[in-house]
Amino acid sequence: MSRTRSTTAAKRVAASPWEPAVARARQREAKRQAVLQTAARLFNERGFHATSLDDIAECLHVTKPTLYYYVKSKDEILLECVRSALVMMHEGIDAVRRDGGRALDQLIACMRIYAGIVTEEFGKCVIRIGEDPLPAPLKKELRQLKGGIDREFRRLIAEGIAEGSLVPCDPKMAAFTLAGALSWIGRWYRDDGGLTPEQVTDQAVELLLGGILARKEPVRVRAVPSGTRARKS
Amino acid sequence: MSRTRSTTAAKRVAASPWEPAVARARQREAKRQAVLQTAARLFNERGFHATSLDDIAECLHVTKPTLYYYVKSKDEILLECVRSALVMMHEGIDAVRRDGGRALDQLIACMRIYAGIVTEEFGKCVIRIGEDPLPAPLKKELRQLKGGIDREFRRLIAEGIAEGSLVPCDPKMAAFTLAGALSWIGRWYRDDGGLTPEQVTDQAVELLLGGILARKEPVRVRAVPSGTRARKS
Repeated sequence: MSRTRSTTAAKRVAASPWEPAVARARQREAKRQAVLQTAARLFNERGFHATSLDDIAECLHVTKPTLYYYVKSKDEILLECVRSALVMMHEGIDAVRRDGGRALDQLIACMRIYAGIVTEEFGKCVIRIGEDPLPAPLKKELRQLKGGIDREFRRLIAEGIAEGSLVPCDPKMAAFTLAGALSWIGRWYRDDGGLTPEQVTDQAVELLLGGILARKEPVRVRAVPSGTRARKS
Repeated sequence: MSRTRSTTAAKRVAASPWEPAVARARQREAKRQAVLQTAARLFNERGFHATSLDDIAECLHVTKPTLYYYVKSKDEILLECVRSALVMMHEGIDAVRRDGGRALDQLIACMRIYAGIVTEEFGKCVIRIGEDPLPAPLKKELRQLKGGIDREFRRLIAEGIAEGSLVPCDPKMAAFTLAGALSWIGRWYRDDGGLTPEQVTDQAVELLLGGILARKEPVRVRAVPSGTRARKS
């Protein structure tokens, strides 16, 4: 009996010209995501200051008032784009750590996650735009998220040194070096450049792990004499 | 006789309240450099858009009209700062190539030059601000300078592979990986962070050359299955 009743209720809902609340919320969120994705792409292509809400609205074939139904301001859009990417990184790193295993394998997995995200629009926003254009309180939250990712890399590197899989080094410098090379992908990577994000990631990770030297031969990399910075050592 | 005359002339010049033309030109250039250095520091600390000509004038204890005697606009200042750093890199790389030697040693020298410059204010401007805020024609010149540096890195890497000192790899990807890690120094380096530019450079170059692996052990770095980007492979 209750079955008959709920079927009837479902039909009644389907017959209504208004979408059920859940579907409406889902649709709204999908549209909000489209606004953020489009904005992120424009920020990355033209720069944050050179992109207006009008540009974003035009790209989506809507008016600026429609845009305001989904987002409050350009600052809010940037905050959301950068935050999304950083939260994705955190979630990825958390999942890796939960799965456990050797620090080296965890580090590789985290490097892959990081590189993968910076080839996407929100991730590119982290690298190309960052939190700089935002007012201080919003900056702070994003810097904390970034700091957390840096700490995780340092911790994994320190664990890797302790387990003997990584070369003894300053985990802070190593974390910056890895993150720098991987972040740079977000600066130069283009979908139409002939390499997939996975191919780029594979090659970058491989180079960073093994280095570019053919053999671990002794090489003098120490400082050149002062005043000769612009000359060969 | 001519000696007596020139001594007299020198005395007359020294007695004049006006500096000789050469000294004036030198002084003007020194002041112009001070404007550029101060502006670069403010751009790097606060961002380009958040820094006004008034801020720069205030830092130098002069008025904005005084500033206009040395520079035409904020755009011109940024152009000059970024161009100076890129030209320094080019000159450094040229000197290295003229001196010749193994491609590996040349590459190391160029990496050191690159890293050294991005720890300075003009170099930081290249990394933190870049050419993005500038109008198209100015952008173009800077991008060409950048492209030239990238080409030199790729060429040295290709030569290093050919001479057997570098691991066989895609020179384009390797150049991006090296330049990325070194460029990142310009994002995080602070004079008061406890490490000198030389120490930072040494460590970064060493890690990039030798990699972070303790041994060249076989490590699976290839792609994780699709859809598992946020999970450990």
